[in-house]
Amino acid sequence: MPVYKAPVNDTLFVLNNVLGIDRYHNLPGFEDATPDMIEAIVGEAAKLAEEQLFPVNLSGDQEGCTRHDDATVTVPKGFKEAYDAYCQGGWLGLAVPAEYGGQGLPYTLHSAVGEYMSSANMALMMYPGLTQGAIAAILVHGSEEQKATYLPKMVEGTWSGTMNLTEPHCGTDLGLLRTKAVPNGDGSYKISGQKIFISAGEHTMTDNIIHLVLARIEGAPEGTKGISLFIVPKFMVGADGSVGARNGVTCGAIEHKMGIHGNATCVMNYDEATGYLIGAENKGLAAMFVMMNEARLGVGLQGLSIAEIAYQNAANYARERIQGRSLSGVKASDKKADPIIVHPDIRRSLLTIKAFTEAGRAFTLWTALQSDIAHRSGDEKEKQTADDLLGLMTPILKGVLTDKGFDHAVMAQQVYGGHGYIEEWGMSQYVRDARIAMIYEGANGIQALDLVGRKLGLNGGRAVMALFNEIGAFCEENRGDEKMVVYTKGLKKGLNDLQASTMWFMQNAMAKPDNAGAGSTDYMHLFGLVVLGYMWAKMAKSANEALAAGTGDADFYQNKLLTGRFYMERIMPETALRKTRIETGADTMMEMAAEAF
Amino acid sequence: MPVYKAPVNDTLFVLNNVLGIDRYHNLPGFEDATPDMIEAIVGEAAKLAEEQLFPVNLSGDQEGCTRHDDATVTVPKGFKEAYDAYCQGGWLGLAVPAEYGGQGLPYTLHSAVGEYMSSANMALMMYPGLTQGAIAAILVHGSEEQKATYLPKMVEGTWSGTMNLTEPHCGTDLGLLRTKAVPNGDGSYKISGQKIFISAGEHTMTDNIIHLVLARIEGAPEGTKGISLFIVPKFMVGADGSVGARNGVTCGAIEHKMGIHGNATCVMNYDEATGYLIGAENKGLAAMFVMMNEARLGVGLQGLSIAEIAYQNAANYARERIQGRSLSGVKASDKKADPIIVHPDIRRSLLTIKAFTEAGRAFTLWTALQSDIAHRSGDEKEKQTADDLLGLMTPILKGVLTDKGFDHAVMAQQVYGGHGYIEEWGMSQYVRDARIAMIYEGANGIQALDLVGRKLGLNGGRAVMALFNEIGAFCEENRGDEKMVVYTKGLKKGLNDLQASTMWFMQNAMAKPDNAGAGSTDYMHLFGLVVLGYMWAKMAKSANEALAAGTGDADFYQNKLLTGRFYMERIMPETALRKTRIETGADTMMEMAAEAF
Repeated sequence: MPVYKAPVNDTLFVLNNVLGIDRYHNLPGFEDATPDMIEAIVGEAAKLAEEQLFPVNLSGDQEGCTRHDDATVTVPKGFKEAYDAYCQGGWLGLAVPAEYGGQGLPYTLHSAVGEYMSSANMALMMYPGLTQGAIAAILVHGSEEQKATYLPKMVEGTWSGTMNLTEPHCGTDLGLLRTKAVPNGDGSYKISGQKIFISAGEHTMTDNIIHLVLARIEGAPEGTKGISLFIVPKFMVGADGSVGARNGVTCGAIEHKMGIHGNATCVMNYDEATGYLIGAENKGLAAMFVMMNEARLGVGLQGLSIAEIAYQNAANYARERIQGRSLSGVKASDKKADPIIVHPDIRRSLLTIKAFTEAGRAFTLWTALQSDIAHRSGDEKEKQTADDLLGLMTPILKGVLTDKGFDHAVMAQQVYGGHGYIEEWGMSQYVRDARIAMIYEGANGIQALDLVGRKLGLNGGRAVMALFNEIGAFCEENRGDEKMVVYTKGLKKGLNDLQASTMWFMQNAMAKPDNAGAGSTDYMHLFGLVVLGYMWAKMAKSANEALAAGTGDADFYQNKLLTGRFYMERIMPETALRKTRIETGADTMMEMAAEAF
Repeated sequence: MPVYKAPVNDTLFVLNNVLGIDRYHNLPGFEDATPDMIEAIVGEAAKLAEEQLFPVNLSGDQEGCTRHDDATVTVPKGFKEAYDAYCQGGWLGLAVPAEYGGQGLPYTLHSAVGEYMSSANMALMMYPGLTQGAIAAILVHGSEEQKATYLPKMVEGTWSGTMNLTEPHCGTDLGLLRTKAVPNGDGSYKISGQKIFISAGEHTMTDNIIHLVLARIEGAPEGTKGISLFIVPKFMVGADGSVGARNGVTCGAIEHKMGIHGNATCVMNYDEATGYLIGAENKGLAAMFVMMNEARLGVGLQGLSIAEIAYQNAANYARERIQGRSLSGVKASDKKADPIIVHPDIRRSLLTIKAFTEAGRAFTLWTALQSDIAHRSGDEKEKQTADDLLGLMTPILKGVLTDKGFDHAVMAQQVYGGHGYIEEWGMSQYVRDARIAMIYEGANGIQALDLVGRKLGLNGGRAVMALFNEIGAFCEENRGDEKMVVYTKGLKKGLNDLQASTMWFMQNAMAKPDNAGAGSTDYMHLFGLVVLGYMWAKMAKSANEALAAGTGDADFYQNKLLTGRFYMERIMPETALRKTRIETGADTMMEMAAEAF
């Protein structure tokens, strides 16, 4: 049976040593985030994840969700109790402003504890996760009345939220959407149409479900310029906030999915349901992107979370499973065979994952910190720099952490041999669950296009130039430190490949955009390799400093240095391959006729 | 709903143009394999796969197998009919000698049609697949009486076979096995113990099941030197070949697996079951390896098969799904959006798979041809060379085609976006089915170790040197041909990396075997890249020759050249990364304490 232990020390190392979160005490919400307070919060989150969420994860996968003939949906046993424990602990509103019932703490802290929650039970965490996306959209685009009506209940978790974008014929290309909105004359609208793949679309864990729905107002322009965003509650809400009659929205079916069986992924039918415009008419995409950007960070985190729990179990299995003998001679002479962790190929697999999860955690929290700075700083220049970086990192974080998170769940499963293929051992679930993160909230090919086609050139490349300068400066500053050589050398080499590829796009993709598309996925991963390498270099610096200061557990820091060295030796060299591929351009792939594929 | 069309023209191109199978007409069984005959056989196989096996594939996954309280097992609806059609067509014994009821045709042809069968229904094909492994072992190690008793029924498919190796505590390391055999005094044995993960272990599609079981005879030495192989029929077989009383072997449970749901993977309990020694006492591993080597080729083929069917469906989807517009301007102005095949990133994915499956098919058939030569040639030198190559290629074929087959099923699934995650669309099944092939018949880490630790140094490296010479000579011979430059240059570069890495092992792994283990998986893939590149170079040569001769469909050959170019540009450069990783050695990964993982 699988186990889970939240990596609290690793989180604290990133927050305190690497990011130096106490330096930001002047930001709103950070003043309360003292080191002691952070440790206490992270520790409580670990307990919740380990003791309440994780125990119903495997059973939730096996039981799945059930839609009944009356269109109600039952979630797996134990989910409601675990969900209530999560909400009652105040975790849902951890980073939401206090005026709507939240705790106003840093989003960075929300991300830190979010990792544990998704490791422990990704399918369950999607229910509050979708609520958080809806809260974000209402916070930014809702009227004061809408905020007052919906947010407190949603922050408590007594009402949940959803995002309704996709239709059968329209996913990425929202311009094709057909769901329509007809004005009722009283400011409300009648919403009609069908949405698919709606996570947490129907269930009875909450008293109401607040659907945020993209639809086209009658007579609005075609394409993306005619799309508006609506609030469509499952139950009508009275002026006093009470829950009233059922609205015209029902779950038509639940999807049979490869994984996240504990999450009710619904076909939602809107039949003249009453909806309320949120934000301006025909500006629905902008409002939706507030949700979407937040959701992309959350999905990237899922990639990390699943790789982490899969890794933990694979490492345990490798220490316990005895089979064969070490290549360099018997290690456990008291046993009939050595534990398989003596084998280099097993260590290679485990270290590949570990080098990813530890840097992935730093990457996630560093990005989350940019979000906090962008939203909370009083310094316009600082805000802009952070916002630039957040925008640039969002597609990379989503695309790279989920691609690699899946690959590494598969790698961890492989350590188990045949047992990895058997559902009771739990590794299959991690692989099946991790798979969706590469797809939803914009398939990873779309993330790569967002990066290359949009984020790279934004404001004359301001964000990317600033980051290249930052990394270059880091390498330069640490050039003289011999304890840093392996890290800065590897990082510099990767940065050179990334800069050369960026230059190649500038020279070859303006006149021929297919050259950008042809290299986009490789570029996203090249960028990810460099950013994760940067995180390793920063972690190595912090580890060296802690060792020099003689504080804390020396083994912990030595292992960081060792894992970072592995990253630089084995993983970072992939940048050269990515660069080579990018530079071959689009010609060969565009030459083939569509029917010849 | 998924579709399948057997790639008959691609198969015939490899058999006729690339391998020139008519050159081998002097080998037994090949005299009947004229081009017309081959085309007819391949065409019939295509029909069977498309019309009988494929239609019950998705439903078989969804229904799965059921074990009843009386320990009988029901297979999915339609499996029995499809199985019977396969057997009645004589496909099970296609390459088995005529004296046992087979057709004595080339194993190469068996592999060619086997691809179609596994594409169409991998789970179903495992039932006859296991029978074929058991037939191979009985053919080589069985007594004349055993052959006469079992083979004809097994070749007909009225009896099926299994391989019983794994026990709960012992998979890779068979030396740990505990199933015991006690002599009955009449030449038979009582077999007792538990086996797990037994594919096709119990079902009622056949009149009898012939289990081949590894067990330790009472008093035999510990470890692998004390293991013997036994025939344990489900029903006792009378002297006249009639099926009699039930033997003491029952299915204790069927496993809940990630995929291949249509195959009954059983826990088998042996309780003083009557067994008959096959081959010599304590020489069970040698007999088992006859099955195992054959099975490894079959499993490698599964990797190719699943990538092929996943590719076909992804290509169809990409041609049909409209979403967004081309980066280089509107392509389908009559539609609201362009088909997604206009996007370079989709083409990159599809071509990556296509470049793999087409070379993988050539690799499989080329290896199968070595098996035919090794087993059927009258020329000792020729036999030895072929047998060397077969031994060397077996772990690479198994490891690389299944690792990549899985990766490419995932890549094909990604083309579908959200629909790829929904079971009804079929792509999830391909991913889940493909996953097992990386694990069973020796997990791919074991294949890599077999290659580096055993096959590489065998007979002073005779096999590997011969192959390097063959590839080097090919590059040299075609150096002057400007139509071949892109292929021979890419191949030569890859070969150089492979040779350098081989040299590195010779210099660094003798004294320190962990250096071999640390680089084994990278080396296996490096070797695979070069061999698949060699296949592309050979296919390019054949395509150029056909174009020069003006025979056949010029587009077909042009597309081969284009796909091969894509391979050389985008995929072959990975050899440099693999080499870099190998040369970092084992130090970093061995330094970490087991408890620090």
